[in-house]
Amino acid sequence: MGNQKKSCVEKINKLIEKNKNQLIQDYYDFLNFPSISSESQYKEQVLNCAQWLKNYLKQMGFKVDLWPTSGHPVIFATDMEAGPNKPTLLIYNHYDVQPVDPLEEWLSPPFKPVLRDGQVFARGAQDNKGQCFYVLQALKLYKEQYGSLPINIKYCIEGEEEMGSAGLSQILKTKSEELKADYLAIVDLGIKDPKIPAVTLGIRGLITMDVEVQAAKIDLHSGSHGGIVLNPIHVLVEMLHKLRDIKGKITIPGFYDDIVELSPEDRTKVSFHFDVVDYQEATGASSGGGEKEYSAYERAWLRPTLEINGIWGGYTGKGFKTVIPAKAFAKISCRLVPNQVPEHIGQLVANHLMNISPQGVQTTVHVNQGCGKAVRANASAKIVQAFSKAFEEVFEMPCEFIYEGASIPIVTELTEACGGEVILVGLGLSSDQIHAPNEHFGIDRLLKGILIMSRSIELLDQ
Amino acid sequence: MGNQKKSCVEKINKLIEKNKNQLIQDYYDFLNFPSISSESQYKEQVLNCAQWLKNYLKQMGFKVDLWPTSGHPVIFATDMEAGPNKPTLLIYNHYDVQPVDPLEEWLSPPFKPVLRDGQVFARGAQDNKGQCFYVLQALKLYKEQYGSLPINIKYCIEGEEEMGSAGLSQILKTKSEELKADYLAIVDLGIKDPKIPAVTLGIRGLITMDVEVQAAKIDLHSGSHGGIVLNPIHVLVEMLHKLRDIKGKITIPGFYDDIVELSPEDRTKVSFHFDVVDYQEATGASSGGGEKEYSAYERAWLRPTLEINGIWGGYTGKGFKTVIPAKAFAKISCRLVPNQVPEHIGQLVANHLMNISPQGVQTTVHVNQGCGKAVRANASAKIVQAFSKAFEEVFEMPCEFIYEGASIPIVTELTEACGGEVILVGLGLSSDQIHAPNEHFGIDRLLKGILIMSRSIELLDQ
Repeated sequence: MGNQKKSCVEKINKLIEKNKNQLIQDYYDFLNFPSISSESQYKEQVLNCAQWLKNYLKQMGFKVDLWPTSGHPVIFATDMEAGPNKPTLLIYNHYDVQPVDPLEEWLSPPFKPVLRDGQVFARGAQDNKGQCFYVLQALKLYKEQYGSLPINIKYCIEGEEEMGSAGLSQILKTKSEELKADYLAIVDLGIKDPKIPAVTLGIRGLITMDVEVQAAKIDLHSGSHGGIVLNPIHVLVEMLHKLRDIKGKITIPGFYDDIVELSPEDRTKVSFHFDVVDYQEATGASSGGGEKEYSAYERAWLRPTLEINGIWGGYTGKGFKTVIPAKAFAKISCRLVPNQVPEHIGQLVANHLMNISPQGVQTTVHVNQGCGKAVRANASAKIVQAFSKAFEEVFEMPCEFIYEGASIPIVTELTEACGGEVILVGLGLSSDQIHAPNEHFGIDRLLKGILIMSRSIELLDQ
Repeated sequence: MGNQKKSCVEKINKLIEKNKNQLIQDYYDFLNFPSISSESQYKEQVLNCAQWLKNYLKQMGFKVDLWPTSGHPVIFATDMEAGPNKPTLLIYNHYDVQPVDPLEEWLSPPFKPVLRDGQVFARGAQDNKGQCFYVLQALKLYKEQYGSLPINIKYCIEGEEEMGSAGLSQILKTKSEELKADYLAIVDLGIKDPKIPAVTLGIRGLITMDVEVQAAKIDLHSGSHGGIVLNPIHVLVEMLHKLRDIKGKITIPGFYDDIVELSPEDRTKVSFHFDVVDYQEATGASSGGGEKEYSAYERAWLRPTLEINGIWGGYTGKGFKTVIPAKAFAKISCRLVPNQVPEHIGQLVANHLMNISPQGVQTTVHVNQGCGKAVRANASAKIVQAFSKAFEEVFEMPCEFIYEGASIPIVTELTEACGGEVILVGLGLSSDQIHAPNEHFGIDRLLKGILIMSRSIELLDQ
């Protein structure tokens, strides 16, 4: 990269120190909104959160629109003052959050952020409000320091990521001109180790399904009817058991057919090191799931999965009820790797479940809409070079290339709409408990995020 | 039976006709109490129901005690006016009922009885308030007709049958003198066909368990962690799958070891006829469950079972949450046949689950207390002869001998405390939806019950 300018990192860092109290206060204000997109009773609160962001970006000097959708609005903010001779970066975040149940397992209320041991605890503290907030601050402080941004910025913050991004997906076609950019940064990812910088070269795709097994028209007494009838819980258990073999391989015909493997050359660039002990400490979980012939990160990054995300049927309260229920239910999701088409895989799973459903029960499988394909970034792209250099400088360590097992359903479509080079970055850790009680994010990472984003933007100008 | 007296049936029938409106009104009053024993918020309502019964029996001229227990009280009423030269019959009913969830599936409120097509719809309409109520009316109307009862009656109506009868069980030892009787009639059973009279020669035993599988200390994101961790729902599904083989046999070592089979001679007296089409119409269920080598009623009456009565884990609400939960849960029950000891079988199941629990998860099995052994009646006993004759006369059809797959946990202990000959009778039908939404009981059967009980009592004096 020619035309090296002096790094902004030192100056931005001083500004952070000066503004720290207000900065944390603003972060907490953002976290106060219970912007749970998937639960309709929070609709107004989601909108309030969007309005807060709109005002915040306006005060930073951005032109801001709220794009209405079928669901929650998309915030689209631009600062194009760098002009047509400078590149344009499209940044993606989301302001909606996951539901909070089981609420009783939270140590503090999910929408009252609390600082404990350097970590802010709240729903969304990391996913994705924390990561959105350091982007906001990077842009804000850079403008305060230098009067203007070095490149053009388009900033897209959606409100339906946790429920499948249907609204943004629907309006992408009509907004293709607005979303055009040279680069796209998806800031919803993480690093493996708090000390080691890393950028992400791929995420997995996702398809979800709802399964219902009906064995009777009414709940039946397990004494009078036990032994006579098919119990739909037993049937569901048998069917779910048959989806995986003893080696953890998914047994659905065609499930693995379309996979494009990572080339041996690309594999050598990736850090697959997995610390079993650290993982066990962070999660309390063994790393013995999935396909036995692959290592832990191969299974999470490069292999598809089939997980049961929910199961229920019969009596689930206190005490005991000797019932054989009429119905049993499961929620299933598959994480997908490049070249697997979500709708096709969903249909394979559904067809297989229907095929193995025994006589005497009615099995219904609903394949849900709005789940994305896997995305892989180009390791030699300028945006990957810029961000990995910024990470390296701020962490003062060589930057690793990793993948991520999670999905951001909208990313494939957004990459196409943008038309530019994509990178997936973020400062999440696997121990942040996103999507779980007691989600949290470190203040150290929040501040590093500001520096990395400022410096990356600066480097994209060089 | 010598000393044949003229049957009371005709006279009692006339009295029923005369008193019918009041009789139905009293039945509805009894059903109005939400006497759900297993849910603590109904404690006062359970007591109100007991008080109502106490007053009702007192007005009938019975001496009535409310025996306090650790839980809900037992009603113990006696009419010993027949004197020491006459036999004594102990009758058992219960006034508590099952929970009502899922409430939204009831066509009318569970505690506001409604008559539709000759059936009274309410929780407890059959199990066991309906069956208790025709016993009450038989005693009441017989006394009204003849001034006194032909034999001595002890009447035990408990309030915790649906939660395991712990209270009655605990006080049985201190009340052994009060409960002594020549005969014991457990009136909580049914018939197979509304037109065919039948008495029951056996019920199954019961043991219940709560299973918990913990795979992590926190819920985990199924994207970032899917493929790495053991999903406790998958683990639970695998473990539950392993409890039965492809032929429906339970695979737990020792499970069938202690069973005493019915003798070939006794088998010939039993009606095993099962109408697949009728059953399908009544329940919407196929009769393809259980052990494949046995017929439907053999499976329900003479074979033990293992049923999953509840299963839950992960996200079970609307929409989708891509979570891998920390824990998954199941409720399991086994129905038992003669010579199987409930606590022993519970321990066998628990041990087996612990043995097959894979590395990397913590499996906990809690074997619940207070579940009874199977009971078998003696087909040649006087009480069986008396009741089967009464059934025959009222139905005007030969009486069948059947068994029942359900359990009345307290019956074994009560049989021992009573010391007399036992019979299991009732007018329930498999289509009554006991333990399920829209429980109901036919007025025709309620009235037949009054005649059968009156006539049985009369026949026990002969």
